[in-house]
Amino acid sequence: MTAVVEDQTAATDSERLARAYLLGVAEPPAPHLLAFVGERGPIEAAARVRAKDCPDGVLRETAARYKTLNAELHLESAAKSGDRLVVPEDHEWPAWPLLSMAVATGRGVKDVAAPLGLWVRGRVNLAEVSTRAVAVVGARNATPYGESNALEFAYFLAGRQIPVFSGAAIGIDAAAHRGALGAGGVTVALLACAVDYAYPASNANLLQRIVDEGGAIVSEYPPTTKPARHRFLVRNRLIAGLTDGTLVVEAGIRSGARNTATTAGVLGKVVMALPGPVDSGGSAGCHALIREDKATLVTSVDEVVESVGLIGIGSAAPESQRRPTDVLGPDALRVYDALLPRSGRSPEQVAQSAGVPVSRVRGLLPELEIDGFAVRGDTGWRQIVRRAAR
Amino acid sequence: MTAVVEDQTAATDSERLARAYLLGVAEPPAPHLLAFVGERGPIEAAARVRAKDCPDGVLRETAARYKTLNAELHLESAAKSGDRLVVPEDHEWPAWPLLSMAVATGRGVKDVAAPLGLWVRGRVNLAEVSTRAVAVVGARNATPYGESNALEFAYFLAGRQIPVFSGAAIGIDAAAHRGALGAGGVTVALLACAVDYAYPASNANLLQRIVDEGGAIVSEYPPTTKPARHRFLVRNRLIAGLTDGTLVVEAGIRSGARNTATTAGVLGKVVMALPGPVDSGGSAGCHALIREDKATLVTSVDEVVESVGLIGIGSAAPESQRRPTDVLGPDALRVYDALLPRSGRSPEQVAQSAGVPVSRVRGLLPELEIDGFAVRGDTGWRQIVRRAAR
Repeated sequence: MTAVVEDQTAATDSERLARAYLLGVAEPPAPHLLAFVGERGPIEAAARVRAKDCPDGVLRETAARYKTLNAELHLESAAKSGDRLVVPEDHEWPAWPLLSMAVATGRGVKDVAAPLGLWVRGRVNLAEVSTRAVAVVGARNATPYGESNALEFAYFLAGRQIPVFSGAAIGIDAAAHRGALGAGGVTVALLACAVDYAYPASNANLLQRIVDEGGAIVSEYPPTTKPARHRFLVRNRLIAGLTDGTLVVEAGIRSGARNTATTAGVLGKVVMALPGPVDSGGSAGCHALIREDKATLVTSVDEVVESVGLIGIGSAAPESQRRPTDVLGPDALRVYDALLPRSGRSPEQVAQSAGVPVSRVRGLLPELEIDGFAVRGDTGWRQIVRRAAR
Repeated sequence: MTAVVEDQTAATDSERLARAYLLGVAEPPAPHLLAFVGERGPIEAAARVRAKDCPDGVLRETAARYKTLNAELHLESAAKSGDRLVVPEDHEWPAWPLLSMAVATGRGVKDVAAPLGLWVRGRVNLAEVSTRAVAVVGARNATPYGESNALEFAYFLAGRQIPVFSGAAIGIDAAAHRGALGAGGVTVALLACAVDYAYPASNANLLQRIVDEGGAIVSEYPPTTKPARHRFLVRNRLIAGLTDGTLVVEAGIRSGARNTATTAGVLGKVVMALPGPVDSGGSAGCHALIREDKATLVTSVDEVVESVGLIGIGSAAPESQRRPTDVLGPDALRVYDALLPRSGRSPEQVAQSAGVPVSRVRGLLPELEIDGFAVRGDTGWRQIVRRAAR
């Protein structure tokens, strides 16, 4: 793990260990366990589950694994692979996008419980990458039409600094990740297995590229967890939950991508679908979503950006009106603004001035440096003044 | 003109002559003239227009032609060509579908005034053919994708006894008419020129086929009127007004077919659009209509029938539940039900029993005979009992 990632943490070791236990002890989504953790906090909840001192619903969800689960081993194994467990107590927890899941669960919607934590491989800040992301999803059984459109839409979304989320499956998902990578953008793969379990094998290289080129692979499942049929549907809710909108590029009538779209709709996210030839089975699911008013028809990246309400981000705004800092998340922007161009400041000074916790500032400064917004000198961190593009 | 058509009339010669004058004296749509005719009736209105004894708005609409127009000549010319002028005083006037135009005009919508009469070439009963019709329209500049879909949708609509209306233009319109003819169904072409002015020349054979094979070509414009740019838009309102729904098969962003669709929406008719390849300019107008919630996306004839609310007509209902008489209009059904299988009845007896005017009964009986629902014998008209298809 790099210094950047470590500096972003805020959970204590005990909290993280408790979360690792809780995340593995029940098969997600585990609504009773989630509620129990909400009541008692992760440390007490984990101890009580281990002692079978918990409500019936929680007992049922955890009965199979409460005794055998070795959370220390999971954390050790992850650390060895350069992976990390991000938990709600961390600064980089994507609390805002996942709020939709708590709201929907509170309204009585089933199977959309928020995750208890997320295993992450890759150097992205999960909170920042999820604040303005679009999911580009579709069927494994894709047509060349679908794949080329997935590639193209993801390429231009990523080119506008909009992270592209997908499920790393063959077909549309893989094309979406590749398109984003092709644009040098950020892409995140949500998996139905552990982040250390390369699935599908044919996409192993793609998963490695995603991690190497500034994206991430993310999963609820502890190290070595294999994919299973039901996990794909469970995983789909995270694709919908972590993004602002879901674009279905191509999907048969019974495709899992329709499930992701439906979940996105339930979570109050924007659902979009691409039209296709009227007699193409690959577009039948898209057409059904549009016809049933469950998705907005989109034909261009402009329309995606407009639908998701991301206008003003990336090149959706006229070139002359864009500022380079438009690409920064809210915390990063406050840190940037707290820097001075001609004299250095310490992370503590910046934290004080920006009103951002010093641990978070320590994580953000190296990122700002990488992106050319800050520089570390002898006297501390300085701002690099970035003029608007002409 | 055949006996069938003559029996369907009800307007007096004076009314028809007055309407012929009124229809030619102003360029449609002529809202002031329409309102004036509504107030005074056609005979008085025509006399007053000719005498310049009418409100300013009417004077303006009729100034150019009030003195020179020779309506007798129009009626003679039409009679020679086998054409006829159908007027609101006739039984076959499509009063029900056109009611939408009066309603919209009453609400203050511009340019959707009902026609003062319609010139018709072809043996259809205009009222019956308009009670459950679908317009299939689209761009002249069509792609093979668009043309083959127009052909196919029209074919299957016509095969379900749903008359297909279109504008006889090259491209999508022509394919729609051809599809309906291919199914042995009824198709009606609304023209932006006189019914005796074969336009476009490349479709002259098609127009002749439409008339020969049981359809009709229909226009507001008096004999010899040439097409003009503005007349296409004016004509579009009739395609929308005479049908229950409009299906846009393929249309560019600025296609006239979008205008027809918009008018159909304004008139409260069902607007449908076919999706197509996302990067096809030919489908851009369809996608825009769907995206802007001005049209329902449809991918099959079943969905067209469902959208238009024609379920129960044709094979939309399960085969076993369909009755042969489902294809009959309301008057025709009442006439059919008033016949007896074993003893003949006179048109007068049928009229009495059915509560349908005798002139209308005289028009419907030969039609029922052609369609195999009735037979003329020595003792009068008898019912042919038609069992439901297996």
